[in-house]
Amino acid sequence: MELILVTPLAAVLGIAFAILTARKVLKFPVGTELMAKISSAIKKGARAYLKRQYTITAIFFACMFVILIALSLCQLITPFVPFAFVTGGFFSALSGYVGMRIATAANARTANACSKNLNSGLRIAFSAGSVMGFTVVSLGLLDISIWYFLLTYAFHLPPEEVAAAMLTFGMGASCMALFARVGGGIFTKAADVGADLVGKVEAGIPEDDPRNPAVIADNVGDNVGDVAGMGADLYESYVGSIISACALGVSAFAGIPQVTGVSAMSVPMIMAAIGVVASIIGTFFVRTKENTSQKTLLAALRRGTTVSSIIMLLAAFPLIWFILGKEYIGIYGCVAFGLVAGVLIGYSTEYFTSDSYKPTRKLASSSQTGSATIIIGGLSLGMISTIAPVVIIGIAILASYFVAGGAANPGLGLYGIAIAAVGMLSTLGITLATDAYGPVADNAGGIAEMAGMDKIVRERTDALDSLGNTTAATGKGFAIGSAALTALALIASYVQTAQTKGAILSLDLMNPPVLVGLLIGAALPFVFAALTNQSVSKAAQSIVIEVRRQFKEIPGVMTGETEPDYATCVDLCTRSALRQMILPTVIAIAAPIIIGLCLGPNGVVGMLAGATATGFLLAVFMSNAGGAWDNAKKHIEGGQFGGKGSDNHKAAVVGDTVGDPLKDTSGPSINILIKLLSMVSIVFSSLIIAFHLL
Amino acid sequence: MELILVTPLAAVLGIAFAILTARKVLKFPVGTELMAKISSAIKKGARAYLKRQYTITAIFFACMFVILIALSLCQLITPFVPFAFVTGGFFSALSGYVGMRIATAANARTANACSKNLNSGLRIAFSAGSVMGFTVVSLGLLDISIWYFLLTYAFHLPPEEVAAAMLTFGMGASCMALFARVGGGIFTKAADVGADLVGKVEAGIPEDDPRNPAVIADNVGDNVGDVAGMGADLYESYVGSIISACALGVSAFAGIPQVTGVSAMSVPMIMAAIGVVASIIGTFFVRTKENTSQKTLLAALRRGTTVSSIIMLLAAFPLIWFILGKEYIGIYGCVAFGLVAGVLIGYSTEYFTSDSYKPTRKLASSSQTGSATIIIGGLSLGMISTIAPVVIIGIAILASYFVAGGAANPGLGLYGIAIAAVGMLSTLGITLATDAYGPVADNAGGIAEMAGMDKIVRERTDALDSLGNTTAATGKGFAIGSAALTALALIASYVQTAQTKGAILSLDLMNPPVLVGLLIGAALPFVFAALTNQSVSKAAQSIVIEVRRQFKEIPGVMTGETEPDYATCVDLCTRSALRQMILPTVIAIAAPIIIGLCLGPNGVVGMLAGATATGFLLAVFMSNAGGAWDNAKKHIEGGQFGGKGSDNHKAAVVGDTVGDPLKDTSGPSINILIKLLSMVSIVFSSLIIAFHLL
Repeated sequence: MELILVTPLAAVLGIAFAILTARKVLKFPVGTELMAKISSAIKKGARAYLKRQYTITAIFFACMFVILIALSLCQLITPFVPFAFVTGGFFSALSGYVGMRIATAANARTANACSKNLNSGLRIAFSAGSVMGFTVVSLGLLDISIWYFLLTYAFHLPPEEVAAAMLTFGMGASCMALFARVGGGIFTKAADVGADLVGKVEAGIPEDDPRNPAVIADNVGDNVGDVAGMGADLYESYVGSIISACALGVSAFAGIPQVTGVSAMSVPMIMAAIGVVASIIGTFFVRTKENTSQKTLLAALRRGTTVSSIIMLLAAFPLIWFILGKEYIGIYGCVAFGLVAGVLIGYSTEYFTSDSYKPTRKLASSSQTGSATIIIGGLSLGMISTIAPVVIIGIAILASYFVAGGAANPGLGLYGIAIAAVGMLSTLGITLATDAYGPVADNAGGIAEMAGMDKIVRERTDALDSLGNTTAATGKGFAIGSAALTALALIASYVQTAQTKGAILSLDLMNPPVLVGLLIGAALPFVFAALTNQSVSKAAQSIVIEVRRQFKEIPGVMTGETEPDYATCVDLCTRSALRQMILPTVIAIAAPIIIGLCLGPNGVVGMLAGATATGFLLAVFMSNAGGAWDNAKKHIEGGQFGGKGSDNHKAAVVGDTVGDPLKDTSGPSINILIKLLSMVSIVFSSLIIAFHLL
Repeated sequence: MELILVTPLAAVLGIAFAILTARKVLKFPVGTELMAKISSAIKKGARAYLKRQYTITAIFFACMFVILIALSLCQLITPFVPFAFVTGGFFSALSGYVGMRIATAANARTANACSKNLNSGLRIAFSAGSVMGFTVVSLGLLDISIWYFLLTYAFHLPPEEVAAAMLTFGMGASCMALFARVGGGIFTKAADVGADLVGKVEAGIPEDDPRNPAVIADNVGDNVGDVAGMGADLYESYVGSIISACALGVSAFAGIPQVTGVSAMSVPMIMAAIGVVASIIGTFFVRTKENTSQKTLLAALRRGTTVSSIIMLLAAFPLIWFILGKEYIGIYGCVAFGLVAGVLIGYSTEYFTSDSYKPTRKLASSSQTGSATIIIGGLSLGMISTIAPVVIIGIAILASYFVAGGAANPGLGLYGIAIAAVGMLSTLGITLATDAYGPVADNAGGIAEMAGMDKIVRERTDALDSLGNTTAATGKGFAIGSAALTALALIASYVQTAQTKGAILSLDLMNPPVLVGLLIGAALPFVFAALTNQSVSKAAQSIVIEVRRQFKEIPGVMTGETEPDYATCVDLCTRSALRQMILPTVIAIAAPIIIGLCLGPNGVVGMLAGATATGFLLAVFMSNAGGAWDNAKKHIEGGQFGGKGSDNHKAAVVGDTVGDPLKDTSGPSINILIKLLSMVSIVFSSLIIAFHLL
């Protein structure tokens, strides 16, 4: 009891830190009246979108609540599930909302600070990122703590039931995250692609030009997609990894009297709490002298995450020794494996997508034979880049499993894998801060352009933005790696849940339902990605038509004399995004239930394994291909292979446009999908065990 | 003994039919002197390529032979393996070679006949396809028969050892098939893409224009890729399905005294023999009246395959009743499921890729917003199209398994799955004929263009070609479906082989080596596809540079006064293709051995399952996306959305160019890859069981 109290305390500490940081950000001046006006237009658009998104999501949550209540009345789930489901969704949504608020408040301020120097701009953008990072982790720990204490002390449930109930609020968080990622992702990419296709390619005006009617929508998109979507997404990852570790811990130590279920659960929870403190300390190391170079800035950011990771690694050892005892100190190795694997995947992402390395440079050079070859090149690059993360995660899984003692007790091995995921995400507070400041810098650049600020300001925001791309690569490594590990932990949790409920499983690969489940599960991420890509395409096409219409019908837009009708584009994006986000999410929830009812619990496990395997690969493929196309284009814009405006550049723009929905809509959504499938399977396990064909 | 003799008899019958048909083709006149000259240039190029391909392959086979001899001296494999390996490769290569010879002989003759009418052209092209189809199946049955009778009667091996030894010559066939598909695929697509990028896009001259220096290379490519590659490929599929069914049959009936191992093996072998006869009968139904419409022609082709399938379905019932007895008549259901599944996958392929249906039409319309949207649209279309074949195959697997009696005896269920694959491929003689005539028609069109024949001739060859695309969709359905079923049967064979050799397997999905094997295996098709795509890109870029050089440096090429230097382009393609085909094949052979040595036999099974799942999906994704882009382009060329030369058409050409390597190089190669992985695992199973880390 006493020790686990550090978890809610860390949550409160994190929230306090976020509030203080937010206040600091708000103290900075917004800049000129025009900047304030633009920023306010962006904020208004983002708020309007999120309000409508939450309204629709609320209807969905209400329907699900009723279904879950019905299931609980049939005693197919415990009565806590419907409520846990709702709180998970609520906190996930709140994480995204807070992120959006601070990001829209910081964008103009960052632009304004950049007119002073690069370092001031970085400080505001990074602070805004920190607010988001610490909000996500604190709300996550708060939600976990509330349920833990409520179930343990108010309802006096034993640890195994506490863990089982907590697993289910992950489903709420995952649903919300998927809505936010898919909806936000469609919005942002439809606006971006639409704006580029007409503005850059057809009309030949630069990015973020105020004459482009979709420019405000594009900037709103950054906030609802890259910020609010990412917040909801990582809330889900963070919480998912902790609760799956709790569940696996309780059952791993079930037959071991020296370690209680409470102890097993407290390890991931306290690790996360330590991670919050370590991250706060880390932020103080992100400081540089005035007027410094971009390289020093990157070093400063890296210093912050490195310090946090080292603190984490130092503190985890005594923690595990003290709580689990020295026989189980092997589990400490998992924490280290998780952190190292995350960093290595980040490096591989950077290698394949940064124009400092060969793959992206070669991709840029293939623009010389036209857009077809750069597309083939990017697809190939993305596909081949899957091997590195797959091998890294494979080694991390095996190492964590065996070092945790899986050879003697498989349950311990699975717990070890889950702990590796927690280790990877424990310092999320600061890794997310270095990741989330990117969209703020991006927006700041947009405002600088639209407000007609000095050229140097745009250069500085671009420098910040490109720095953000590098740190985002590491962030992606953690997001993808943790998704794979957490998904595996959740599959293991499903297996245990099903067995607890009396299912006799035969998970042999040669068992036909397992095999067929595997095949169909493997197809789900393909179908899902296709749907989200198509949604972006559809929405972007409507933007293209609208922008073309405005250029043609509203006189003076192209000459800059008349202000284009920004609001219509924002509204179009909002409506398309909200309409299109429903189907993919519904499929993600319906698929495991339908497959389960047909193929039974064995088929469900096959499906989850298949979906995790291809989901992981497709996510890496799509985000790396997209990232490489983006940077190949930037490489050319930097003056290589003919530079801006050349035919090669046009070919590269096609590549970038194709990559946009892959890397920012479909790719990140798949990370959520693979976990949501497991969560849904867990929640509906009794139903499926009671009724199934095979 | 007596009954199984029909198998070599059918092989002889098939060869006789192929020879007679070939003679019939050769009796037709070649046409003008110019046509003969062009045809001879194509033939010379194709022969030169294949000669060099076979030389390199022979070196590879010699090395593998030595390695296998060494392994057999260490008693890690039986002494028949090295020899079986070589014969498999030899017959696969021979199938491709014969196909190339007849196709290059028929191309000018088809063009010449088309100057008379459509029906005459069809008859020659279809006859050439038949020669290839019956060569493939006859050589396959011959190889199987030789080994069956040799091992049974000369070496007096018991059925289980006969079956095990026969499994290994599949590896030879698969290796050869992979070389032929990858090498031929790189050649054909490099020439095609290279010719299009400079000729069509940059210089604005039509397809197959004699001024294009890459035009002969392009036509050579059709013969070495689409014909010789396809022949080697389907030889491998055909033989693979039969031998895996033999192996699973022997072990399924091991404990059942009423059915001997010989009987179990004779079912797939005799089914295949009946299939040859049924196919020959079917070809006689492919006839139409003179001057008929394209729709009637399609009906004529379909009539042939339908008649063959019905004969097959009628004959299989008494066969299984007589050989296995009425208790096992359920296995008859598998034959039907296999055939039906093949047809259904063919329909789904047609639905997603033909411009008679909504998906491809929508894709064509997305060209209006540029090449980026048509690329995103095609990728999405390909991804979403995976769900249909996956569900069809999933149902076929479950239905075959349970109807064969898998619930009581899992071995029988697996045998049923293998029989479904044999059923699907039993009428390969005629389905391949309707598939292989496409490239002949394509070549005929090229010759008509280059020889400056009447416009109506080109129109007729185009009609034949487009008809070929429709029937090819069905062919692809059978190829993809049978690959998935055969791959599963081979995995089951591997499991049995490993268990026979004393490995104690734990294939539970929660066993970490299985899980990690699954993840890494799932990545293999991605890596493989990336390598083959990159190879095409590289080779195409060298063609682009060469064609540009010739246009610039050789005066009179663009005006048609001087003949371009065709031979250099052929030579460039040859060298690139041969250089690039090595690495992917070596990876396919090395991967299972390396993974096996690290993760052990459990990891191997995981890897095979993972590779089969993603391989199947990627193959469908790539071939459907490529097919849809191709037909969307043709749809626009047919006058929709601005027609030829419009911006929309240019966007569609980009899509088609991206799709080319996906659908004709990487996609079909993956079908071979997933089987080769299993074959290699089987051959090296003793080595891996003896030495492995986990």
